[in-house]
Amino acid sequence: METDLKEYTESFFLTPGECNAQQVMPVSLLVSRIIEVATGHANSWGVGYSALKANNEAWVLSRVTIEMTRYPGVNENYSLTTWIEGYNRRFSERNFAVTDGEGNVIGYARTIWVAINTITRESADISQFAYIVNNISGRPCPIEKQSRLRPVESTRASKYVFKYSDVDLNRHVNSVRYIEHLLNLWDLDFYDNHVIGRFEIAYMKECLYGMEVEIKVDDSTSDCHAEILHEGEPLCRARIVFSDEMQEDKR
Amino acid sequence: METDLKEYTESFFLTPGECNAQQVMPVSLLVSRIIEVATGHANSWGVGYSALKANNEAWVLSRVTIEMTRYPGVNENYSLTTWIEGYNRRFSERNFAVTDGEGNVIGYARTIWVAINTITRESADISQFAYIVNNISGRPCPIEKQSRLRPVESTRASKYVFKYSDVDLNRHVNSVRYIEHLLNLWDLDFYDNHVIGRFEIAYMKECLYGMEVEIKVDDSTSDCHAEILHEGEPLCRARIVFSDEMQEDKR
Repeated sequence: METDLKEYTESFFLTPGECNAQQVMPVSLLVSRIIEVATGHANSWGVGYSALKANNEAWVLSRVTIEMTRYPGVNENYSLTTWIEGYNRRFSERNFAVTDGEGNVIGYARTIWVAINTITRESADISQFAYIVNNISGRPCPIEKQSRLRPVESTRASKYVFKYSDVDLNRHVNSVRYIEHLLNLWDLDFYDNHVIGRFEIAYMKECLYGMEVEIKVDDSTSDCHAEILHEGEPLCRARIVFSDEMQEDKR
Repeated sequence: METDLKEYTESFFLTPGECNAQQVMPVSLLVSRIIEVATGHANSWGVGYSALKANNEAWVLSRVTIEMTRYPGVNENYSLTTWIEGYNRRFSERNFAVTDGEGNVIGYARTIWVAINTITRESADISQFAYIVNNISGRPCPIEKQSRLRPVESTRASKYVFKYSDVDLNRHVNSVRYIEHLLNLWDLDFYDNHVIGRFEIAYMKECLYGMEVEIKVDDSTSDCHAEILHEGEPLCRARIVFSDEMQEDKR
């Protein structure tokens, strides 16, 4: 569903099978929806996956920042509205509002996208995409931009090898799978008592099938930092700010 | 979208982010869609998640059998149509046809569902659900019923502990996650040269967060058998029949 050229909205229904153990939408699914709606908006302008592929180019998600006051619950309708805040040669800034079935905004997201040449894997000049300049929206996004994510002095660490179900059609690790592996650092009991108020992730280097990585986390405070590294080199960094507020208990 | 009471169809679009490394729909996503469409059909009859929950009952997927001649590809429209073949006190048999954007049937699935009491975890008598008898369809499903899946004499085995992202709103392992862990038993190179022609899974016992399981596989022929066990007791068994036919290479 397209509202106007500058804003684009898609509506969804949260099925029981999509919920986490706390009976709400997991952050990983929200990021899937963010990617899907961004793709839908780009496709509506004729600059989606197929158009870029013809030039051996592809959109790559570089950063995601999310703040939610609550997450959609089981069998709830919700929608995501997206718009472009700005762009330069190297990246575009695309924002999102998450709205519940009654039209209340329950959260916002900021994303940064780059276009890469799929053969050289180098970034493409997106100022060639003239449609962007004509479609910048003045709609504000009232959450802070992503903080600078620094190397993590870990309080604990684990190892993982990326497998078949982790990789996407570019044969790199799916952006959402990093998030699932990061969220798996905390146990179910912790999630019963804490809600993710703010989530940040910066994708730094493409990770391939079969790579063994180290997952490091500093959770010495509720403002947690995590990092996934391959041979000492960071692939992505994340910040997860937990609050003690519980979601309404529906169990 | 509802076609008539006995058949129910939902249409989908395969986004780039949903594809596997072979640029087609993974079996795990197909099973997600099967669950979603079954739920949609039950909801359309007023006997979905919410209606059963009021009686402390829930539908539980017991078996899935899939045969595909090809899988939907990137940016392809597809739809699933479902109907009930039969039922008795203990289970209902629900079938599916998968259709591509041009209306060609590209695969079929058979599923078995039981209703359980969510407090006692015992199976409920579904012959109480009078709507089923009035809505049995005579549409044939031209794939064989699930074979009897026996204990696996493994050629290789691995261990896994179920984590936050593996569990669903009932705090049990999500039906689709078992499948992802089973599919991860083969490497990317193998999937480049083999297609899953037939997939069968029988869910035998509910698995909980934090359980350590053993994943055993017998892949001594292309007719592979696998099993996930906890303390020697089977949680699910699967059969995966690979063919050497490659999907059209779109890379």
